[in-house]
Order: sequence, then structure tokens, then C-alpha cells
Amino acid sequence: LFNKQIGEFRAEFLELHPYDQAKIFEEQSEDVRMLIYSYLSPEEMADVMENIDYEDVEEFFTEMDPRYASNVLAEMSTDDSVDILNELDKDKVASFLTIMDKEAAQEIKELLHYEEKTAGSLMTNEYVVIHAGQTVKEAMRHLRQEAPEAETIYYTYVVDDQKRLVGVISLRDLIIAEGDWLVSDVMSDRVVSVSVGQDQEEVAHMMRDYDFLALPVVDFQNHLLGIITVDDVMDVMEEEANDDYSKLAGVSETERSDQSALAAASKRLPWLIILLFLGMFTASLIGRFEKALDVVPILAIFIPLIAGMAGNTGTQSLAVAVRGIATGEIEKLGKTKIIIREGLTGLITGLSCGIVVTGVVYVWQGNLFLGMLVGLSIMMTLIIATIAGSMIPLVMHRFKIDPAVASGPFITTINDIISILVYFGLATMFMDLLLKQ
Amino acid sequence: LFNKQIGEFRAEFLELHPYDQAKIFEEQSEDVRMLIYSYLSPEEMADVMENIDYEDVEEFFTEMDPRYASNVLAEMSTDDSVDILNELDKDKVASFLTIMDKEAAQEIKELLHYEEKTAGSLMTNEYVVIHAGQTVKEAMRHLRQEAPEAETIYYTYVVDDQKRLVGVISLRDLIIAEGDWLVSDVMSDRVVSVSVGQDQEEVAHMMRDYDFLALPVVDFQNHLLGIITVDDVMDVMEEEANDDYSKLAGVSETERSDQSALAAASKRLPWLIILLFLGMFTASLIGRFEKALDVVPILAIFIPLIAGMAGNTGTQSLAVAVRGIATGEIEKLGKTKIIIREGLTGLITGLSCGIVVTGVVYVWQGNLFLGMLVGLSIMMTLIIATIAGSMIPLVMHRFKIDPAVASGPFITTINDIISILVYFGLATMFMDLLLKQ
Repeated sequence: LFNKQIGEFRAEFLELHPYDQAKIFEEQSEDVRMLIYSYLSPEEMADVMENIDYEDVEEFFTEMDPRYASNVLAEMSTDDSVDILNELDKDKVASFLTIMDKEAAQEIKELLHYEEKTAGSLMTNEYVVIHAGQTVKEAMRHLRQEAPEAETIYYTYVVDDQKRLVGVISLRDLIIAEGDWLVSDVMSDRVVSVSVGQDQEEVAHMMRDYDFLALPVVDFQNHLLGIITVDDVMDVMEEEANDDYSKLAGVSETERSDQSALAAASKRLPWLIILLFLGMFTASLIGRFEKALDVVPILAIFIPLIAGMAGNTGTQSLAVAVRGIATGEIEKLGKTKIIIREGLTGLITGLSCGIVVTGVVYVWQGNLFLGMLVGLSIMMTLIIATIAGSMIPLVMHRFKIDPAVASGPFITTINDIISILVYFGLATMFMDLLLKQ
Repeated sequence: LFNKQIGEFRAEFLELHPYDQAKIFEEQSEDVRMLIYSYLSPEEMADVMENIDYEDVEEFFTEMDPRYASNVLAEMSTDDSVDILNELDKDKVASFLTIMDKEAAQEIKELLHYEEKTAGSLMTNEYVVIHAGQTVKEAMRHLRQEAPEAETIYYTYVVDDQKRLVGVISLRDLIIAEGDWLVSDVMSDRVVSVSVGQDQEEVAHMMRDYDFLALPVVDFQNHLLGIITVDDVMDVMEEEANDDYSKLAGVSETERSDQSALAAASKRLPWLIILLFLGMFTASLIGRFEKALDVVPILAIFIPLIAGMAGNTGTQSLAVAVRGIATGEIEKLGKTKIIIREGLTGLITGLSCGIVVTGVVYVWQGNLFLGMLVGLSIMMTLIIATIAGSMIPLVMHRFKIDPAVASGPFITTINDIISILVYFGLATMFMDLLLKQ
């Protein structure tokens, strides 16, 4: 493809969907990329850049000629160029904005100051607005003019003279309506909007629940500031799901399969080292019970069983709590109710597993007290671990702390420690009974 | 709301968005629901039902008058009523289809036989088709007629005389185009489609990557069979993310925060009991090394550390592999490459953690050989656990086995067992060295 003349290259490359163009572009070496910059107009390059993860484009914008780069940024959807500019350092952003076409720079600046992960950071200001007093025909003419620039034209928002949001009309309803009707008669005045500071996860849920293709964003006085389209929300959903998943596994959300082993190891190691020292602490705890181990060495063989069960059950309960927070179910039900429910669940599972373990250990080792000790430990640790698994993320969420600490391995290690304390605590208390047998 | 006259109720209830109507409806007792059925037409009820999870509606359709129920099903989007019918038992489905309006029943029957979780099961047959030879004006007139029935009109698919898919045109392009142009001149003939048997996860990725609002579904001869809209794909994304998340935590994907403790416990217990017996097996393995434990009881205190580290690192590597499968990165890179990468990652993390542990244990216990034993065990188990964590889901995926077995707690327990074998195996081999100190 790249040995061809510019004309042939353009013909073939521009036939592709921009997403495929982006995939091809990303795989090229710097030399070839420099060639592509010279072959494509800033507008064509903007389509390519919009289809690359915004975390990955920094090097491309650095290697481009600054004037070309700022033209590309100006041609991109405003929300996408803002995402990219947020990744670059401030000096570079300022220099791009200075070279850039004034109007485009103004649009970008409007969006640059919104906080990350809020509705404001997702929205675009390239949308079509019509006035309640216009006729359907006028609205359609306006829509046709604005269509090439707008992010979506399938929903058009209706504002009053103060730019306050008063209604919404879908293109579907517009094309069905008669030309001389007034927009205010055809529009729906029960328009669902989000406020500019709202969390992006809530925005995603609204979009999913109401099956919208776009959502208007307003300030506290109901002035229309921008719109969020469904394609951006799909990326948010993916991002949030990955985020929760990574935390549960204790991996960095930025780790990807195509990175080198060294990069992967350097991302996983910090976690592993922390867990290593927590594990050392667990070991030192068991060390305190060395006397009990000396007297009844068989105690040692059940350590992984008890710690493992505590870890597993804690992770289950953590996952249900995190998912409940994500779907909003927990807000609805109330935290106390959830913790009581988890406590009861822990009681039922603990009791069941405890009885099974008591029986198995008794038959296997012929020692009823050992069986009861292990069974009782399992029961108690399951109850505690289940409650801890749901309580820790809920408390974190309450205090608006990002529950990174509530990640899977961390909860597992905490539960390991608790279970060891319970097990050896009980063993020391009932040492006499154990030795009698 | 429900003490009011039918007129007032209707006025207030129907003003709400169907999603909010559904939320209110779900919270009512059976008596009130029966009243609502009598207040709303099947068409109005269909809007409500479309906004309830299809797993939850069975009881509603059972309590409705059968004729009313089948009218509601007929009025719903075909893809939604098919989802519901798939949840009901076959006799009931047959009886609903018999009472139903013939045309609606026919449309539903067409979709009923597609396999779950494929493109076919997501698609609807309520879409607008135009012919390549029509003019833009004719196409627009046709679109206006069909708009009220169609799932989306923002993309219109273009077919030839044999109903083969030849192009796509967005409503945006249609309204910009001149009325007397031919559809074939305005449409894009590079239309991206999915085949009817394709996995729903792949469909979701295409939709997300290409930012489509709808995708056409074709058979192997490129005949247009239906379309998939973005709102259905958002539900799929949520479902797939939940699915992976639940597996990692070892909880049932159907468990929700609003279920009773007994229901939750009964869903978690099967897993816990299996893990309990695997834990017992681990215990019996350690039992075999009782002699080593008798001679060097200090060995016991490092069991949770080693097993825990193996579990954590295995889960990390499992998560990266599962995510890589989900995003399609792994298909692209090849499985061997991934496993080699994970092996190297395991080597680096293992070596680092091993050295740290050796040092800490040496300083703490004053026994260099014990330190080296624990360090070497950590290193070996980290390498093995990292490889196992990525290999197990990859092998499962290869053989198209649903990797439920590759869930987090299972991998953790397998890695527990391996780590215990490595640790005590090494301890037994180097017993003499340990005792010398």
C-alpha cells in the first residue's frame, strides 16, 4: 500500500472505514506515518485520530508538524480533541490553541475545564439547536445546514430565548410532522437531561435505561451546554466495566495483552510486593501461635483451607457489593439492608460449610474436637469475611474514596489474616479439649 | 396515583417515560397490577413491558388475561417479545401465538428459532428497506410511512431485487440529498454487516469500534435478515461485562443485591462446597508432609504467604487473559505469544518477590536456608501460577468450552495446591540443609 503513488494510496485508504484506517495507521513505523501525514489533509487525518484510543495518540501529535497537528485537532469532534489535549502537557496545549483557527480554539477551550469522568467531560458542543417558535419547515432547513458539522442530528434540542432547554424532538417526529406546524407543538417537553457535574457512570446508566441516542447536558439554571452521544457512552461503559474487573483481580487497568512482559511485570509488582508484606505479617501472626503448632502440628494442614475459604467468600461478597454500587441497586435498597443481608448469607453459608467440614474432618482424622474446631473456624470466618467483603467497598463508596483499596487481593489478604486469628485463637482456647483425644 | 379515576391515572402515568412507568409498575402488588392492565391498552402496556428485564416478566404475562397478554406481545418490538417468549414454557408460547394476530405471530416465529447469544437473537425484523433504484424522494416517502413501526429509521438499508444487501444510507445523508437523485448514487456501498450466527460479543465490539447506531444482519448469501440497534447492544455489553466479572469472583451472574439472603446463599453455596472439598484435598496434601512439619514446624507459618501469592498472581494473569479474549487482542497476537509473555512476566515478578522474601525471612528468622527455601518456592509458584492463570482460559476458549471452570476461585485453589506441592517438595529435598542451621 505504501509503495504506491499518493493518488493510489489515497483512493484505497480513504475507501476504508475510519476505524480500519486507524488500525492500519497505528501499525506503521514513524517513517511511514510521516508519509501518511503528507498524503492526507488535516480533515482526513482527524477521522483517523478520532478512532484511536486517546491515551495512545500523544506520540503522533508530537511527531506531526505543529501547524498540521493543530489543524487536525481543530477538525476533530470537539469532545475528542479535548480528550486528547487533556493527555498532553500544558505548554503544548497552549501552543496548539494559539496556532489554531480562533473559532475552533474557542469551542475547545469551553470544554477543557470540565472535570474528568463527569458529564461535562463527555459532552460535545457541536449540536443543533432550534427554537420553540420555529416551524417544522424552518427547523428542517436549519437542520440540513448544520448536519455536516453536528455530532448527531437525530435528536434536536429545543431552547427558549434564554437558551434554556425546553424540549426535544427526534428527527423521526420532525420528518413525520407537517411543515407549517410549530416546533413547540410537535416537541416533547418532558426532556430528560443531565447536569454538567454528574458522574459519567450515572450518565451511562440513564442512556442505557431510557434507550436514548443522545442526552442534553445543562447547568443548574437549565441552560443547554452540550450533548452526549451514545457512542461516547459505550466507551464509558467499557471503561467502567474494565475498571471494576481490574480492581477485583488486582491488575492495573492500563495493562494490555500487547504490552511487553517487562511492562506487565512492572505494573503488577507494586501490588504483589504490598501483598507480600501483608503475607509476611500473616506469617508472623502464625508464628505467635508456634506453641500451639508444636503441641498439635496437625493444625497446620487446615491453614490453607480456612484462609482460602475466607478469601473466596469475601471476594463473592465484594463482587456483589461492587456490582450493586455500579448498577445503583444499593442506593435504592440502603446500605444497612445490604450488610444485614450479607451477614445472613454468611451465616447460612458458614453454618452449612461448618457442618460439612466438621463431619469430614471427624471421619478423616477421627478427632471430633479437631473437626468441631475447624468447622467452627470456617463458620466464623465465613460470616466475618462475607460482612467485610460487602462493608469495605460500601464504606469506601460512602466516603467517596475510590475503592481501589477494596480490590480483590486486598480483601482476600485481610480475610486471610482474620481467619488465621480466629482459627488459632479458638485452637488456643480449646487446646485442652483437643489434647484429650 | 392508584386511588384516582381511570382518566386521571392515565393522564399522569402516560406522561412518564416508559422506563419510569416500568419502575412504578414493578413495585405494585398483584391487585394494583390487575387494575393497571384494565386501565391501559395492550399497546401502552407493551411500552411498559419493553422496559422491564425480560427475565422478570414471566409472572406478569401469567397473571394477565391470555388474550390481553398476546396482544401486548404483538405490540412490543419483535426482538423484545422473542426474548420474553424464550423465557416462557413451550405450551404457553404456542397458545399465545395461536391467539395472536397472524402477521405479528409470523414475525415472531421468524425470530424464535435463532440461537441465544448470536446476532440472530438480537436482531429485529422491524426495519425499513429501500431499493437501490428508488429516488431519494420515493425513499423518503416510504420512510415516513414506515417510521412509526420501525425500530430505527436513522439508517436505512438498501437491497437489490433478490433482497441482497447492497448499501446503506443514513437519514442524515438522505435529508441532505436532492429529491430526484437515485438512492444508488447517494448510498454507501461499503456496508458493514454481521452474519446471523455471529457471537453477540463480537457484534457489540463492532458496534462500539465503528460507532454505528445499527448493524444489518445477513445470511451466508448476503440476504438481509434483520437489524441490530445500539440499545440492544448496550444491554449485551453490560451482560458480558457482568458475566466476566461474576466468573472472576465465583458468584452467579443472576445474583442481585435485592434478593433474599437465602437466595444468595443457595447460589453461592455450590461453589463454596466444591472449593471446600478442593481445600480438603490441599489439607490432605500437606498431611503427607507431616513428617517435615514435625521436624521443622516453622515451615507452617509460610503456608498462607506462599498459597496467597500464588492465588493473587494467578488471578492477575487470568484477568488479563480473559480481558484479552473479550477485546479480541489475543486473537490478534496469537496464544503462544501471550503464554510466553506471561511466562516472562512470571519470571520477572517471581525473581523480584523471591529475592525480597529471601532477604526478609533471613533477617527475621536468622536462617538463610529457610529464607532461600521460601524465596525459591515463591519464585517457582509465581512462574507456574502466572502461566496457569493465562493458559487455562486460553485452552478453554480454544476448545469453545465456556470458561466457567476458569473462574477466579477455581484458579486460586488450583494454584494453592501447586504452591503447597512446590513448597513442601523443596522443603523435603533440602531438609538436611534446613536442619544444619
